[in-house]
Amino acid sequence: MESMMIWMPIIMASLGLIYMVFKKAWVMKQDAGDGKMKEISDHIYEGALAFLNAEYRLLAIFVIIVSVLLAIVSFIVPTTHWLIVVAFIFGAVFSAYAGNIGMKIATKTNVRTTQAARTSLPNALKISFDGGTVMGLGVAGLAVLGLTAFFIFFFHFFMGGSWTNTMDMTIVLETLAGFSLGAESIALFARVGGGIYTKAADVGADLVGKVEAGIPEDDPRNPATIADNVGDNVGDVAGMGADLFGSYVATVLAAMVLGNYVIKDMGGSISDAFGGIGPILLPMAIAGAGIIISIIGTMLVKIKSNDAKESQVMGALNKGNWTSIALVAISCYGLVTWMLPETMNMEFFGEGLQEISSMRVFYATLVGLIVGAVISSVTEYYTGLGKSPILKIVQQSSTGAGTNIIAGLATGMISTFPSVLLFAGAIWASYAFAGFYGVALAASAMMATTAMQLAIDAFGPIADNAGGIAEMSEQEPIVRERTDILDSVGNTTAATGKGFAIASAALTSLALFAAYVTFTGIDGINIFKAPVLAMLFVGGMVPVVFSALAMNAVGKAAMEMVQEVRRQFKDIPGIMEGTGKPEYDKCVAISTEASLKEMMLPGLLTIGFPLIIAFVPMIFGMNNMAIAEMLGGYMAGVTVSGVLWAIFQNNAGGAWDNAKKSFEAGVEINGEMTYKGSDAHKAAVTGDTVGDPFKDTSGPSMNILIKLTCLIGLVIAPILGGHSTTDSHASEKIKKEVNLTVKSDDLAKAVITTTYTENGFEKTKKEIIEGSLEEVENKIENMKGKGIHGEKHFKLDSSKGETQKMVILHKPKNKS
Amino acid sequence: MESMMIWMPIIMASLGLIYMVFKKAWVMKQDAGDGKMKEISDHIYEGALAFLNAEYRLLAIFVIIVSVLLAIVSFIVPTTHWLIVVAFIFGAVFSAYAGNIGMKIATKTNVRTTQAARTSLPNALKISFDGGTVMGLGVAGLAVLGLTAFFIFFFHFFMGGSWTNTMDMTIVLETLAGFSLGAESIALFARVGGGIYTKAADVGADLVGKVEAGIPEDDPRNPATIADNVGDNVGDVAGMGADLFGSYVATVLAAMVLGNYVIKDMGGSISDAFGGIGPILLPMAIAGAGIIISIIGTMLVKIKSNDAKESQVMGALNKGNWTSIALVAISCYGLVTWMLPETMNMEFFGEGLQEISSMRVFYATLVGLIVGAVISSVTEYYTGLGKSPILKIVQQSSTGAGTNIIAGLATGMISTFPSVLLFAGAIWASYAFAGFYGVALAASAMMATTAMQLAIDAFGPIADNAGGIAEMSEQEPIVRERTDILDSVGNTTAATGKGFAIASAALTSLALFAAYVTFTGIDGINIFKAPVLAMLFVGGMVPVVFSALAMNAVGKAAMEMVQEVRRQFKDIPGIMEGTGKPEYDKCVAISTEASLKEMMLPGLLTIGFPLIIAFVPMIFGMNNMAIAEMLGGYMAGVTVSGVLWAIFQNNAGGAWDNAKKSFEAGVEINGEMTYKGSDAHKAAVTGDTVGDPFKDTSGPSMNILIKLTCLIGLVIAPILGGHSTTDSHASEKIKKEVNLTVKSDDLAKAVITTTYTENGFEKTKKEIIEGSLEEVENKIENMKGKGIHGEKHFKLDSSKGETQKMVILHKPKNKS
Repeated sequence: MESMMIWMPIIMASLGLIYMVFKKAWVMKQDAGDGKMKEISDHIYEGALAFLNAEYRLLAIFVIIVSVLLAIVSFIVPTTHWLIVVAFIFGAVFSAYAGNIGMKIATKTNVRTTQAARTSLPNALKISFDGGTVMGLGVAGLAVLGLTAFFIFFFHFFMGGSWTNTMDMTIVLETLAGFSLGAESIALFARVGGGIYTKAADVGADLVGKVEAGIPEDDPRNPATIADNVGDNVGDVAGMGADLFGSYVATVLAAMVLGNYVIKDMGGSISDAFGGIGPILLPMAIAGAGIIISIIGTMLVKIKSNDAKESQVMGALNKGNWTSIALVAISCYGLVTWMLPETMNMEFFGEGLQEISSMRVFYATLVGLIVGAVISSVTEYYTGLGKSPILKIVQQSSTGAGTNIIAGLATGMISTFPSVLLFAGAIWASYAFAGFYGVALAASAMMATTAMQLAIDAFGPIADNAGGIAEMSEQEPIVRERTDILDSVGNTTAATGKGFAIASAALTSLALFAAYVTFTGIDGINIFKAPVLAMLFVGGMVPVVFSALAMNAVGKAAMEMVQEVRRQFKDIPGIMEGTGKPEYDKCVAISTEASLKEMMLPGLLTIGFPLIIAFVPMIFGMNNMAIAEMLGGYMAGVTVSGVLWAIFQNNAGGAWDNAKKSFEAGVEINGEMTYKGSDAHKAAVTGDTVGDPFKDTSGPSMNILIKLTCLIGLVIAPILGGHSTTDSHASEKIKKEVNLTVKSDDLAKAVITTTYTENGFEKTKKEIIEGSLEEVENKIENMKGKGIHGEKHFKLDSSKGETQKMVILHKPKNKS
Repeated sequence: MESMMIWMPIIMASLGLIYMVFKKAWVMKQDAGDGKMKEISDHIYEGALAFLNAEYRLLAIFVIIVSVLLAIVSFIVPTTHWLIVVAFIFGAVFSAYAGNIGMKIATKTNVRTTQAARTSLPNALKISFDGGTVMGLGVAGLAVLGLTAFFIFFFHFFMGGSWTNTMDMTIVLETLAGFSLGAESIALFARVGGGIYTKAADVGADLVGKVEAGIPEDDPRNPATIADNVGDNVGDVAGMGADLFGSYVATVLAAMVLGNYVIKDMGGSISDAFGGIGPILLPMAIAGAGIIISIIGTMLVKIKSNDAKESQVMGALNKGNWTSIALVAISCYGLVTWMLPETMNMEFFGEGLQEISSMRVFYATLVGLIVGAVISSVTEYYTGLGKSPILKIVQQSSTGAGTNIIAGLATGMISTFPSVLLFAGAIWASYAFAGFYGVALAASAMMATTAMQLAIDAFGPIADNAGGIAEMSEQEPIVRERTDILDSVGNTTAATGKGFAIASAALTSLALFAAYVTFTGIDGINIFKAPVLAMLFVGGMVPVVFSALAMNAVGKAAMEMVQEVRRQFKDIPGIMEGTGKPEYDKCVAISTEASLKEMMLPGLLTIGFPLIIAFVPMIFGMNNMAIAEMLGGYMAGVTVSGVLWAIFQNNAGGAWDNAKKSFEAGVEINGEMTYKGSDAHKAAVTGDTVGDPFKDTSGPSMNILIKLTCLIGLVIAPILGGHSTTDSHASEKIKKEVNLTVKSDDLAKAVITTTYTENGFEKTKKEIIEGSLEEVENKIENMKGKGIHGEKHFKLDSSKGETQKMVILHKPKNKS
């Protein structure tokens, strides 16, 4: 019997999308202002559309090429099914569509926020945050809808809609990986291309406009000003949306793969009220519940007083955020205890099978929620205005740009200390609670509030744009004051949002990494093998080179923009007097084309390296398992180094930015108040120039690099592994031989040798259990329970001081 | 019978030291000039002595504390012998003494070089290079002498001077690791403390002297000027010397450990003309030969023409360098083929025992020599004057300090690409040739020319100092011109020397890492175990935080110096008029104390983390093997990340430095010649300020961090492993069961299950061999050969299409 529970996530996602449609209609109904406001807003909207259209053209080519390659592979390699191509295309289309919704609503909400700010602050918050909510629900809703729908489809297609064995489920999930790969490919374009776009436009507008022509920021006479405003949306809205869409899908997918592995460890099948796939459905159910919880959270974000300050606005956001995190914790408790068997068997490498209660899985989800919350505080500490690291950078600005930059670099570098200890602790704890399934579920729980996180995140650039529109259309000062309050809160949420995005990318990659190992069927990744170690080095290098390429790309794209703006200033008569109209669209086109062109090389690096590592040694006849291990080493290298460089670059960039901003309100340096225009401020501006590509281009790109690397690995895995997750437990006879040596009551050791046949070859697996006699005996007893049906040949006699042997023969439950 | 060959390295080292003593006497006999020259030189000499004495006081405390800790451990842990304490103390003393020789000769040679430059350039080169030669031979001679003497002593103490079994040899080598640990501890003080010293003095002298008081560089009125000149010797001479001393000793040690492992893989004993320890003696023999070869190399470094330019001087150095590399290659061929058995058995993880010919070991040494040469070219490309990366940074300086810094960072980051691919290729190739023994011998061959490398390296700062003395003592311009030629060549050799130091640190760490695995007896380091993966993350983070702490330390130490210089300018009457004498010694004292104080925190981080990882889980009762694997993951993380950050920081720093220097001769930017004093030059100076701590403090410190981490791991290893390298092959009966499945002539698979008893527990090891029938059969035949004496129970019949079984019982040769 197939449980109805499989439909739950789709229903939740649909509810989220319906709610989004209503919200969107409501936002669009709001007053969009008039005259100049509308004109500017329309320019930004059109510029955003221009970027999207150019991106889609390039994307279409990319998707076609990859689809053809995937199709060829699926016809050559028997373990890969052609439906992965369909999943890939849909993954790309869904992610692109989610980005489209986000960009459109953001560029429509900005002017409405400005208009609302003319009457009241609570209204301005409501509209800007509702715009963010539409974005958040669009991303989360489409992610869960797409993933779940394809899962159900493949579940019926490959398994007839009911449990057969873990090998068939592996094929379902391998094919589903195409959806995730499609989504993450879009993220590459949106996050990396978008990151280059936003900084190229920014630098180009500033260098010629502010520096050479001496006109203020956001001045409509500057041909690049629209591109600059579009850039905020391209980078911060569409880029972040695609990033989290990718993380969301990949996390849930990885958790499902590991859920299947749990079932395998339990003997190849379980019986529960969910068609025997409870552990696989659980991550989707948590994601589905997260959507409804996020809606509840967004409803709590409101302020009443028109005289509210930043702290009240921040308080309203925090209330919504913390409530949704608490609700996710509660729903995790309910779902985990309801959907999972009370106790499960999980294989721990080197420790053998262990009995894991469902409560321990719940604790793992708590670990994920805590990491999501703490990483935001860590980021906030290292980049927040008025915090000690920022004050130190401000002090160091007094001795020049050199010392400012050293201080900023050092801050970013030191910030890796608590962040990495947090991640390492999270990996350890969630694994200790419930193995890699626990790690993946920790990530799933953290990602459950994605819609809420994105709403908080997207509201920032909307408020920023609203402020720009207020400035350009010369509104009353009170309007700008109100949007400034929102913008200031938005800056804080942008920093914490980046922390959340890194954490999600890190945990997602780990989950994918674990899923990879199970797909390939390797015993683990042993870095004492030199080729694996060599690949760990190569993987570690790639994020560093990727970052450099992304930074150089910004420089090149900005130079093209500079030349175009110079040309317009020279060629268009009356442009400086305001009588000649600048050709905004040309600047938008240049930024668009340059950004998409310049992302090719880093993109190629990301995609090319894993393919080379997998296929070049294959051509030379290397053993597939050895290749799989090398590729795993590469993935680990990219992940470790990528996480470090993401934290370093994001936090250094954020710190420089706020060190510079500190001068706006004035700072005390060596007992003297120092303001904008001072030498120290100029040094801080130089620091910010360095920090800009760090925090908006290369830093956030790391998320995509590490996730995409692990996903490509996952898609290659079946080619290398040839379905070595073959459900040998379920299909063939197994012999377990236990050699128990009792030295004393406190010291016993059992060597368990499992012999089974796989692909016609007899294989042996060895586990060693050490500990007190009681512990060891309990573990041996457990091996005989749940899912594995054994018969003893020799009874163990714990009093004897010498090695004894016991043989357990397993007759699987579902002999096919 | 004990071979005389064991004495060869000691004889070679002694010859090297005797040659050094003569060279030193010759240099000291040269004319040291008079008057002001002598006075300045004496100040520098006394400053250097002051630093050394302060360092020795701190070192003494450190050595006592560590000795007590080691002694306690050696009494508590039965697998550790108290003689490790003696080895540790001697390692520290030898390294410190080598540094002492180097510092003294460098500070005595500088003024003699100035004096020689008054008469001729060939003489100036001869004296400065001879000073470098004394340094190089002192380091290499003492390293080989100390290590070999202790090896012979322990070989007699633990084994009675003749082969017993690999377990006893493991104890010898574990105890010998104390010598290496002592040497590397000194390197921590010399390299990290020295790096902080040199930059603190430099920045302090410049900030108050050049910027605030407006007096030129090297002006004797500046109280910090002597400290600044001392700093060059402390950082570039003593720091580099201690660094390479540590690498040299550690590399040879690691190769010896892996040599012992080869003997173990060959059944626990071999018979050769070297007392059965040929593979263990070989690395020492190569090191010994390297000393004599280096002497020959240094003899070739001379020029004849007084009108020679940089290229001729460089050519003379290259001639000596390339000749010594070629001679090492030849001597490796001779020693390898002479000292190793013609074919050896080596265990390759996951591939089982393989037969390795001694020629393949020779190829591995060639890999090391190639890496040493190529890495220098790579470094030279990314940091060399007139090369494309530098020209790009120069161009980017025209748009300000921000773009200059982005360009410099990007250059350093991109330079990791060829460097890491080179290292990865070297690991792969040397491992493919001869396993981890091959990796360690590649490192040994590369390090064989250490004396020559150091001579080339130390000559640079001597020439630099000679130029400073010429300037301060107001010599004829021709003198400065001649020293400038030497200085300019010295700058290039400094960059390539840093490349060599990184390469040596990287290969040394890999060799130590491999030795660690054999000491602990773990099966490998599986990063699919979450605690291991978590430690890989933590390890990756440590170099980043270490670098930040080192950078901050420079800032703090420089601030103390600034205050002292300001005080002297205010308090000493007539100081600016040249009538009052500045208190140079106070500045030297401040730089000394501040640098040693500020290196505590990064030092603690380096030593503390591995101890915490090893002992905290032990207190909580974690399994030792699991801890060993975690610590291995940590070591790998530190190594991979440390190598990356070393390359990044060294090359970025070097690139900024030369971008700045490019302005001295003038550069073309956008069609215009631009010189010193331009805005672009000022931007380049800012870049150089950031680069200074990168290339002189945090970058080079990475070498010490990664080596010391791996060495601490190696010293902890026996505590964790409890001598699990127990020579089971030699002492107990082994059963090998071979299951051969022949699918076709092209596809056969053998599963070899080895059962043996270790520490009273029966253990099983499984190897899988796949390939053509012929290959598989050959491998099975090999298992029965060399060192392992087997008897077949079933004959294999290759025509059968089904699984067959064969059992081999091994009767070891040296049954004890």
